[in-house]
Amino acid sequence: MITTDICIIGAGPVGLFAVFEAGLLKMRCHLIDALPQVGGQLSEIYPQKPIYDIPGYPEVKAQELVDNLMQQIAPFHPTFSLGERVDGLRKQDDGSYHVITSDGTVVHCQVVVIAGGLGSFEPRKPEIAGLEQFEGKGVSYMVKHPEQLRDKRVILAGGGDSALDWTLYLTDIAREVTLIHRGESFRGAPDSAEKVVELANEGRINLILQSNITSLHGNGHLKEVTITAKDKTVTSLPADYLIPLFGLTPKLGPIADWGLSIDKSAIEVNTHDYSTNVERIYAIGDINTYPGKLKLILCGFHEAALMCQSAFRYVYPSQKLSFKYTTVNGVHAF
Amino acid sequence: MITTDICIIGAGPVGLFAVFEAGLLKMRCHLIDALPQVGGQLSEIYPQKPIYDIPGYPEVKAQELVDNLMQQIAPFHPTFSLGERVDGLRKQDDGSYHVITSDGTVVHCQVVVIAGGLGSFEPRKPEIAGLEQFEGKGVSYMVKHPEQLRDKRVILAGGGDSALDWTLYLTDIAREVTLIHRGESFRGAPDSAEKVVELANEGRINLILQSNITSLHGNGHLKEVTITAKDKTVTSLPADYLIPLFGLTPKLGPIADWGLSIDKSAIEVNTHDYSTNVERIYAIGDINTYPGKLKLILCGFHEAALMCQSAFRYVYPSQKLSFKYTTVNGVHAF
Ligand SMILES: Cc1cc2nc3c(=O)[nH]c(=O)nc-3n(C[C@H](O)[C@H](O)[C@H](O)COP(=O)(O)OP(=O)(O)OC[C@H]3O[C@@H](n4cnc5c(N)ncnc54)[C@H](O)[C@@H]3O)c2cc1C
Ligand SMILES: Cc1cc2nc3c(=O)[nH]c(=O)nc-3n(C[C@H](O)[C@H](O)[C@H](O)COP(=O)(O)OP(=O)(O)OC[C@H]3O[C@@H](n4cnc5c(N)ncnc54)[C@H](O)[C@@H]3O)c2cc1C
Repeated sequence: MITTDICIIGAGPVGLFAVFEAGLLKMRCHLIDALPQVGGQLSEIYPQKPIYDIPGYPEVKAQELVDNLMQQIAPFHPTFSLGERVDGLRKQDDGSYHVITSDGTVVHCQVVVIAGGLGSFEPRKPEIAGLEQFEGKGVSYMVKHPEQLRDKRVILAGGGDSALDWTLYLTDIAREVTLIHRGESFRGAPDSAEKVVELANEGRINLILQSNITSLHGNGHLKEVTITAKDKTVTSLPADYLIPLFGLTPKLGPIADWGLSIDKSAIEVNTHDYSTNVERIYAIGDINTYPGKLKLILCGFHEAALMCQSAFRYVYPSQKLSFKYTTVNGVHAF
Repeated sequence: MITTDICIIGAGPVGLFAVFEAGLLKMRCHLIDALPQVGGQLSEIYPQKPIYDIPGYPEVKAQELVDNLMQQIAPFHPTFSLGERVDGLRKQDDGSYHVITSDGTVVHCQVVVIAGGLGSFEPRKPEIAGLEQFEGKGVSYMVKHPEQLRDKRVILAGGGDSALDWTLYLTDIAREVTLIHRGESFRGAPDSAEKVVELANEGRINLILQSNITSLHGNGHLKEVTITAKDKTVTSLPADYLIPLFGLTPKLGPIADWGLSIDKSAIEVNTHDYSTNVERIYAIGDINTYPGKLKLILCGFHEAALMCQSAFRYVYPSQKLSFKYTTVNGVHAF
């Protein structure tokens, strides 16, 4: 069990900055994100795109902002559970909470902060007979630990950047890499696509275009993948792992069942402190809603600051909060 | 008369960033500040100090943040009246406003945004017989146009950074520079103090320590200054200009009489859009108050963003506002 002061669900820009504001008030944070990396939408959807409305930055690339936020919160040593989705919440007798993830991780905390953006990024699953039965048994929708794939026969499916990038990355790790794409050309970065075609021409990977995976076979673990081409030709390929990479789509998921008042997939909060209708649970960033709400990064930063002032009472019930400027007081690690 | 969409009172960090948010919505801004430079408290009180809680900046010097904000808003070409205090407000028949400054400048606008921080920075005035009678006639409390002092006999009074810096600066411009300080040592930066003493030793300026100015004389314009030393010696010096530099203190001033609901020198606002109780008047940044309010720069940025969404209706009454990400839509000048 992990013990912390504040458990933050979602390691997007807003969840990350909350660590800083909490740290100024001597509150420790643990963050959980369904994605294998921090940064939320910025890292997942548009890492290389410029943002123009971060105050004080005439222009900043999304990933650069995430990197800067990580540097800014480093003095407070946040801890992370990445690649795990928060599924459950259990209130304890003393009012504190256990937050429980898809991998069975339990986080004990005084305050729960939902900074879940548009929701947990869930993979878009292709329609393949037998797919769900092999999940965790050869089929996975993201690469969390590339080393697990060393010397294995890996099949990737998809035509975007993730499929291209992982094909390139795994070529030197896996025994055999096959990329299957239903189309003829790729949606991903042209230079990645070029490299993939080159590897195929050199015979270092198998590239199968205009084809779909139609069924999976195995006995407890994936063994074989059946592929149907546009011209109806059916072939089978041996495989240890199948990684369908058809993008991620955000889902509010189990959070919807926590008794929070929800309006159009967003959690209703009080603008005094961004608290929800359930005590000790706050919601900040894209996931909350209130009159005037704008889904902007800079708004989430403000929400994080006010939230921490309010959450303090649950972490230090007998202490009085005093407000100090960082310029005057500095930033002190614990 | 200056015509604009939004007249922003106060060119601190929050007023400056409001220009950016307004610009994204195609609203032009004119800013007025009592200080001769932009940046509010940051430039006036702690330009060289680091701030640690600007999101995405592990550390940024206050003046650097102001410079970056100026660069960020440059595409929208804001206009400025600096060194002028807003004194009056006149509602027009069509609902728009005339904002009037101490220098008689009139700004016609659809929306008034008060981003006045702790109030207009007003000079602390020393107790000198006849002082007010010579204001604008030889006596001034800030140097707006150093060229006016070329070849004049200038007396500066004070012991802080402003007094030291202006003494150094004016040495090459004025005919004669005298610095009068009631103490023996200076509060300002040690290396500036050293340079001033050096100039005095070289006979390039007059340095009079342990002395106070006790009365002023002239006929319509300042001609002579009487100085009393600690040991009671009284001397007189001819002078064209006297610049007492004893620091600035913020005053809410005439804004207090505009019918706005005010709580402890702060303007009460609605958190939906940071509007005040008077239509078309908004208040953002340190000058406003609401439950949960934190006087932080990052909070003012959020307030500026929400305010602009609401102000839009007065500038473009017949248009529907559509919300777009800068990453997707870019930043377009007019
Ligand atoms: C193309 C594009 C351009 C944009 N441009 C701009 C712009 O210019 N300016 C701007 O201000 N904003 C912009 N945005 C919006 C901005 O990205 C969001 O406002 C911001 O990402 C919100 O941050 P957040 O931390 O609230 O949530 P997110 O960034 O969405 O992060 C939330 C995280 O929570 C995780 N999560 C959710 N539920 C769970 C769960 N149950 N268990 C585990 N993890 C969970 C998700 O996996 C995700 O990683 C843009 C968005 C897009 C898509
Ligand atoms: C020493 C110090 C350290 C600080 N450290 C931090 C920190 O680490 N982090 C943080 O977030 N904040 C910090 N602050 C607070 C921060 O400076 C303020 O929150 C910020 O300046 C508020 O910005 P603003 O634009 O609302 O107002 P201000 O910066 O106060 O600017 C308001 C401007 O409006 C002008 N004005 C007012 N009335 C009139 C009028 N009638 N006519 C013309 N002009 C007018 C004033 O002259 C002034 O220039 C610190 C403050 C101080 C003093």
